Amino acid sequence: MNFPSRLIENAVNELSRFPGIGKKSALRMVLFLLRQEEQLVRKMGESIIALRSEIKYCKKCNNVSDTDLCNICSNPKRDASLICVVEDLRDVMAIENTAQYQGVYHVIGGLINPIQGIGPDKLQIESLLKRVVNEKPEEIILALSATMEGDTTAFFLSRKLQQHEVRISAISRGIAVGGELEYADEITLGRSITSRIPYIPR
Amino acid sequence: MNFPSRLIENAVNELSRFPGIGKKSALRMVLFLLRQEEQLVRKMGESIIALRSEIKYCKKCNNVSDTDLCNICSNPKRDASLICVVEDLRDVMAIENTAQYQGVYHVIGGLINPIQGIGPDKLQIESLLKRVVNEKPEEIILALSATMEGDTTAFFLSRKLQQHEVRISAISRGIAVGGELEYADEITLGRSITSRIPYIPR
Repeated sequence: MNFPSRLIENAVNELSRFPGIGKKSALRMVLFLLRQEEQLVRKMGESIIALRSEIKYCKKCNNVSDTDLCNICSNPKRDASLICVVEDLRDVMAIENTAQYQGVYHVIGGLINPIQGIGPDKLQIESLLKRVVNEKPEEIILALSATMEGDTTAFFLSRKLQQHEVRISAISRGIAVGGELEYADEITLGRSITSRIPYIPR
Repeated sequence: MNFPSRLIENAVNELSRFPGIGKKSALRMVLFLLRQEEQLVRKMGESIIALRSEIKYCKKCNNVSDTDLCNICSNPKRDASLICVVEDLRDVMAIENTAQYQGVYHVIGGLINPIQGIGPDKLQIESLLKRVVNEKPEEIILALSATMEGDTTAFFLSRKLQQHEVRISAISRGIAVGGELEYADEITLGRSITSRIPYIPR
């Protein structure tokens, strides 16, 4: 693309760094910015800079936080004997939205992915093992994606955790609530049969 | 959505201002930013702020430019007697990419859209009429979108331009090059028959 202005070229190049945003979408975003008030655009740019430069992580669970300890870790009503291991803050937000979980979290910050060069040492696994030693939780729930990377990470974690006295569980996989059997994929359906649970009428 | 941090909430709200970007996509963008080097994120934020605060528009054609006169208007090889009227810089870039047009442009900055409150006074129409008086071009080419708003704007412009001595033309509409008749919509196909052109074998 030949841009009529260096400023536009710069902004398009920067915005197209975002995953899923190509040069054409970035140019559409640039045109949108040009139509906005200067003050609004400044606010947007500053919020991006502040996000990265001022962000803090909870010293306990590694979730993003504005304080040293996050709202969940510092809440005495949460059950600290139950630690749910998740990939990132989106998963924490998703589980919190269910309002079904009263334990705490540990955010490992990614999944083991040899192709992308992400080994266990790049994840917050050491800090999880330290928590297990120091806080002596009763149970660790592995709530990782049902992908190759998620399964690899869960397997690695379970091997490490087995060296400690702690119950290890994983979120159940199966047919989604409201889902029709006919449309479920074979692997999910197969796993929902092999890992069947006692039927409790309610 | 309940965000674990004010910084994240701010950035998500700001990024979801972009058209077509909802809160979920904005959160994905935020997670991407958190994984980047602080210096890179600062560069991105600054490029957005600079874009809006330092942008200039060509004094002649209203296209974005780093200088008072844009590259096209200041190029003596371009035919200044031919002015192509377009909506925004994307259209200029699209036509320049064809390498088929040697005239100059006039960017009106939008289309008449009463529902969004965009009247002719919000567009660069007055400056176009002034150019017609001062520069006395031979022809004005209307290259606006084939939408309700584009047609309305073209009609308005043609009425205004008819008061001056200038030829008015519009880009041709019809079946796309390589397009199959079978898949063309009825209006395009109909228009391609009524506005048929002499067949020149080449």
